[in-house]
Amino acid sequence: MARRGEFALIGEVFAPLAASCPAALGLGDDAAVLDWRGRGDLVVSADALVCDVHFLADDPPDTIARKCLRTNLSDMAAMGAKPVGVLLTAALSPALDDAWMEGFARGLGADLADFSVGLLGGDTVSTPGPAQFSITILGSMDGHVPLTRSAAQVGDDLWVSGTLGDGALGLRVRQGQILGLAEDLRAHLVERYRLPRPRVGLGLALRGLAHGCMDISDGLCADAGHLCAASRVGLVIDAPALPLSEAAATVIADHPALFQAVLGGGDDYELLFTAAVADRDAVAATTAATGVAVTRIGEVVAGSAVDVRDADGKSVAVVAAGWSHGE
Amino acid sequence: MARRGEFALIGEVFAPLAASCPAALGLGDDAAVLDWRGRGDLVVSADALVCDVHFLADDPPDTIARKCLRTNLSDMAAMGAKPVGVLLTAALSPALDDAWMEGFARGLGADLADFSVGLLGGDTVSTPGPAQFSITILGSMDGHVPLTRSAAQVGDDLWVSGTLGDGALGLRVRQGQILGLAEDLRAHLVERYRLPRPRVGLGLALRGLAHGCMDISDGLCADAGHLCAASRVGLVIDAPALPLSEAAATVIADHPALFQAVLGGGDDYELLFTAAVADRDAVAATTAATGVAVTRIGEVVAGSAVDVRDADGKSVAVVAAGWSHGE
Repeated sequence: MARRGEFALIGEVFAPLAASCPAALGLGDDAAVLDWRGRGDLVVSADALVCDVHFLADDPPDTIARKCLRTNLSDMAAMGAKPVGVLLTAALSPALDDAWMEGFARGLGADLADFSVGLLGGDTVSTPGPAQFSITILGSMDGHVPLTRSAAQVGDDLWVSGTLGDGALGLRVRQGQILGLAEDLRAHLVERYRLPRPRVGLGLALRGLAHGCMDISDGLCADAGHLCAASRVGLVIDAPALPLSEAAATVIADHPALFQAVLGGGDDYELLFTAAVADRDAVAATTAATGVAVTRIGEVVAGSAVDVRDADGKSVAVVAAGWSHGE
Repeated sequence: MARRGEFALIGEVFAPLAASCPAALGLGDDAAVLDWRGRGDLVVSADALVCDVHFLADDPPDTIARKCLRTNLSDMAAMGAKPVGVLLTAALSPALDDAWMEGFARGLGADLADFSVGLLGGDTVSTPGPAQFSITILGSMDGHVPLTRSAAQVGDDLWVSGTLGDGALGLRVRQGQILGLAEDLRAHLVERYRLPRPRVGLGLALRGLAHGCMDISDGLCADAGHLCAASRVGLVIDAPALPLSEAAATVIADHPALFQAVLGGGDDYELLFTAAVADRDAVAATTAATGVAVTRIGEVVAGSAVDVRDADGKSVAVVAAGWSHGE
C-alpha cells in the first residue's frame, strides 16, 4: 500500500489546494496570515496531538492540556504574533472519566490565564481510538510584519532560544531508556517533554529584528532544513555552540550518542531564527527583556543544505533528522 | 466510572474556562464572534468528525472531505457569516493509502472552490485509531450583526430550511435498516447523509431578517431546545407542517415510527430560525433569491420547552431527542 509521509502529503496533496489562497503562505510557514478587512494581521494556525504519539496516556491530564495549548502558542511565537484565542476540538476515548477531564480543564484554564488567551469555542466528540486534541489558535500582529521562514538572508547570524534536546531526552527518560539519572535532572527533562515553554515574549521582542524565524518541533536539523528551503539559503551550525541544559549535558556526557537528540530530537519548541550581524547586540538584549536565553549557533550561507560542524570544523553526521515524536 | 455527556462536559467543564472571553458567547452558539481590531466581525467555529461516528469507513473519501467542510460551513450559515477560510487537522489511520487521500483532497478542493473558501493551514498526524478530521472555519459578517440562538422573540414565526430527516434516514439506509426502497429514493437519502447542504446563501439572506437562528445538527427537537434555552422562550412546532422529501415521506408512510428521525434525527444541517410575523413575506422571498425552500413550522411562545403538536393539536412524544450521530 502506497503511503506518503507527512511532508509529502502536505506538499503534494494539500498545498495545491491552498495555492489559490495567498494567506496560506503555501502551507509552508508556522501559521497563515490574513488581511482581515484591510487590517492585515490575523495570524492563524492549527496543531493536533494524539495520545501515545505526542503525549503519553499516563501523563497528568493537566500537562496534556497545557502541552496541546503550548505547541500552538509556539506557532504564534514563531510568527511574532500575540496570541488572542483558541478553539479546541477534543476526541475523547472511553477510558477518560470525569476526573481526568477536570484535570485537563484545570491545566487548560491555568495556561489560558497565564498566556492571556481566550477559549473561543470548539467541539467534543467520542472516539473508540486514542484521545486526540486539535487546537486552532488566532493571533494578532498588532500592525507589525509577521516573521516567516522565508526571510533568512545570507550573512545573517543563526540563533536559537533556550536549550535543545531536553524534550526528546525527557521522552526517553519516560520510556525507561535513560536510567541512573539524578532525580532533579530526570524531573527537568520529563517536565520539558510534558510542558513546552512557548517563547511568546521572545517572538514579540523579535518583531522587526529577526529575519527568518520558526519554532523547532520536528528537531533542529529537520526544521533548519525547512528554513533553508523556504529562504533558499544554506546554514552552517556550530555543534559545540548548541545550548544544553545541565540535565542534557549530563546525559550526553554519559551517552555521547544521545547528542543526536539535540540535533534531531523533537519537542523542543524553541525559536530558531536569523538576524543581521549588525543586530547582534539587540538580539542578545532580548534576554534581559524576556528572561529567555538566546544563543548564536551558526550563520546563514549561500547554498541549500544544513551543515553541522564539530569543534574541528568537520561535518557531523545527523542520524535522526526528521524525528517523528518518538514513533 | 463517572462520565459526563457532551453537553454537560461543555457546560460544566469548558464553559467556565470561556467565561472570561466575551467573544466565545458562552460556548452556546454555533460560532464565536471576535471584535477583530475594532472591525467586529470575525466569526470562528470548529467541528470534528470521527470515522464510524460521523461518517462511515466505506463512504467515498471525496464525500467524507466534503461532509467535514460542509458541517463547518453550516455553522457559518447559522451565524449569517460569509465563509472565508478553513484550517484542517487530519488524523490518519494506517488503513488510508495515497489513493484514498487523493480522493479526499479532490472532494475538499471541489468544495473549497464551490464555496469560495481558502485552505489556510492545518496539521497532519498519524493515529492508530479511526481517522478523524477537525476543521476550524473563519467567516466574516461584513459589518452585519451576527445571527445567534439567543435572539428569538415571543410571537415570532418559527421557520426551517429544506427538508428534515433525510440524513438520519440515509444513515439507516446505509446500515441496512430500511429495505425495499426505490433506487432513486434510496440514493437521495444516502446522499443527504453523506453530503450536507449548508445553507450559506440563506444565512446571508437572513442577515437583519431572522431573529434567533441556528443549524440543526443534533436533531430538530434537541436543537429547538437549545434555541429555547438560549432565548428563554418556548416553541410550538406543528408536526404536519414539517417539510419532508419525497424519499422521507415514502419511508415514513411505510414505517410511521421513523417519523422520529424527522423530530430527533441528526445530520440535517438545515437552518432553524425565527422571524417577526410582519416579515413573513420577506422570509418567504428568500427562496426565490437563494433557491432554498423555507417552511413555517410553528411559533415562539412564552415558556421554556419545545411542544410538538399533531394535526389535532395534541402533543407528540419525542423519543429520540438528542440523537447522537447513530451511536
